[in-house]
Amino acid sequence: MRKSLCFLLLMLSFSGFSQKKVSSKHPKNIILLIGDGMGSAQVYAGIVANKGHLNIERSQFIGFHKNQATDDFVTDSGAGATALSIGQKSYNGSIGVDSLKKAQPTILEIAEKNGLATGLLATCSITHATPASFIAHQPSRSMVEEIANDFLKTDIDVFIGGGRKHFAKRKDGRNLIDSLKAKNYQIANTIEEVENVKSGKLAGFLADEEQVKISEGRGEQLLKSTKTALNILKQNKKGFFVMIEGSQIDWGGHANDTQYIINEMIDFDKAIGEAFDFADKDGNTLVIITADHETGGFSLIDADKEGHVEGKFTTKSHTGVMIPVYAYGVGAEAFSGIYFNNQIFDKMLKAFNFKK
Amino acid sequence: MRKSLCFLLLMLSFSGFSQKKVSSKHPKNIILLIGDGMGSAQVYAGIVANKGHLNIERSQFIGFHKNQATDDFVTDSGAGATALSIGQKSYNGSIGVDSLKKAQPTILEIAEKNGLATGLLATCSITHATPASFIAHQPSRSMVEEIANDFLKTDIDVFIGGGRKHFAKRKDGRNLIDSLKAKNYQIANTIEEVENVKSGKLAGFLADEEQVKISEGRGEQLLKSTKTALNILKQNKKGFFVMIEGSQIDWGGHANDTQYIINEMIDFDKAIGEAFDFADKDGNTLVIITADHETGGFSLIDADKEGHVEGKFTTKSHTGVMIPVYAYGVGAEAFSGIYFNNQIFDKMLKAFNFKK
Repeated sequence: MRKSLCFLLLMLSFSGFSQKKVSSKHPKNIILLIGDGMGSAQVYAGIVANKGHLNIERSQFIGFHKNQATDDFVTDSGAGATALSIGQKSYNGSIGVDSLKKAQPTILEIAEKNGLATGLLATCSITHATPASFIAHQPSRSMVEEIANDFLKTDIDVFIGGGRKHFAKRKDGRNLIDSLKAKNYQIANTIEEVENVKSGKLAGFLADEEQVKISEGRGEQLLKSTKTALNILKQNKKGFFVMIEGSQIDWGGHANDTQYIINEMIDFDKAIGEAFDFADKDGNTLVIITADHETGGFSLIDADKEGHVEGKFTTKSHTGVMIPVYAYGVGAEAFSGIYFNNQIFDKMLKAFNFKK
Repeated sequence: MRKSLCFLLLMLSFSGFSQKKVSSKHPKNIILLIGDGMGSAQVYAGIVANKGHLNIERSQFIGFHKNQATDDFVTDSGAGATALSIGQKSYNGSIGVDSLKKAQPTILEIAEKNGLATGLLATCSITHATPASFIAHQPSRSMVEEIANDFLKTDIDVFIGGGRKHFAKRKDGRNLIDSLKAKNYQIANTIEEVENVKSGKLAGFLADEEQVKISEGRGEQLLKSTKTALNILKQNKKGFFVMIEGSQIDWGGHANDTQYIINEMIDFDKAIGEAFDFADKDGNTLVIITADHETGGFSLIDADKEGHVEGKFTTKSHTGVMIPVYAYGVGAEAFSGIYFNNQIFDKMLKAFNFKK
């Protein structure tokens, strides 16, 4: 019996065909990194400008997702992130609700329900469409105060980004900072204050509205936030789910500004490197990197040996092309192939072995 | 001892981490499909126009290759195909020679040396840069008569494409059709004649120079050629190597003609489907699909529910972006990740377990 089991395992190990290997081991932690507006040309502009290499190249498995919204061929960040967060395609502008505007549990909420620590990091307002879609349920991305309210309805452990005013200086007069303090959140208003938090709950507000660009002195806020968040989240013995957004790659695309894209891509890649290093050390983590959509119809026309890239654009808006998914660590092979964006939710749920 | 081996295999089988599984089984056959100028937007335009699905979506593993030429950030089809065929990056215009213009053995020649059957199929002149790079060694892609001569220096089993005049109506007065006949090639001048050949050697000339576009009535020449070629090549018990090119996707890009790209993409995908079906049935075949480069800086601005695609372009030339690699069958997992175009040669050589 044992001998035949051994033989079976031998066959499994060495069988070459139809071997899209699905790990039977479930990661304890998932780190989902979203480069907003990050098509493959944006990634490659960063690689070329960074002397030929970025951390994202360490990715073990690659896939593509098809990201059309229910009401539009070209998705916005709301429908794009909502497909990832709730596992259903929805309409442009939706935040954590299905196409009938019904709230659906997000992967972050499901992780929390299963006892995991959770986190959201961004280089834009934390109430912006991408992070919001993982924690809020609103019919429209423009309802930023309602989105801020939704943060209080969860027990998210760490969130860091801009958007302080949607919590502190609201049209409805409520001060959600006090509500956060009452729920034992440590409030950090600078990156130094963020870095000083070593455990417990953390709400980091690095800007009243949006953080500045890298070229305007944002510095390594995302990398430092990532280090702080991973250090806090890993203290939960059951594991964690965190979404980390490189938000402004998209804005570089909208501006048709190649250097803006490159700066933000290289900045985002530092968080990717940190996530990979964490996964290497931890040995029980799945890292997924993708985008919601491509922005700008960006392509690389030329570059010189020093890495100066000449980019060109077809639009100031988003495009409808397939978006690469890069995966690393435990269960990474499940992200190979071509599939719909909402199937990434299914794959994460399956990786965690959780039910919706 | 056996018990600990079994335990090791158990760990290998179920270990989820760092498990970029490399099959120890070597495929007997490799089918390399090159969509000239086929970036991911070209593939997706085909998918959308074909009501949401193409055969290429059956791919199991995906990678990206970095395709810069030695003398230019943006590669041409000569340097692009030569990197794949000889495993070294070279200069634009090179055909099966390294950057010092020295002939290097191609994967097709190495396969032949190891007793495998070999083939080349294209929807352009068979002496054009992409197919030429797998069989010829010339300093310049423009030396089409010298490239035709090089076909006679090998024992390639099947080649089908355009370019009859470079064999039959040459400036140097030689008639290579007679030379081919003397080497026991069956000469086919129509797709029907191609289809009638069931074994032996086959030289198919489907046009004096270039085949017409799909929209001008080319029909299923590539699919029919693929079926004929696979049927002949599989008769070699040692296996085969064949390169099949969807040549005119590139020309659609140069023309900034979205419908041209879509027609040629869907046509190329029929050959992909045939290759996948062959691999499924055969069980000992590796299928690799990639491009040499992207053409047009193509992106998808919009599409309607009927699959009418609105494309836009940034250039009439090639771009320098990373190119997806799609793999299927025995050893397909080795094509995951991000690497240089010339490493595809190394991966094919390793798959075959051949030495250079």
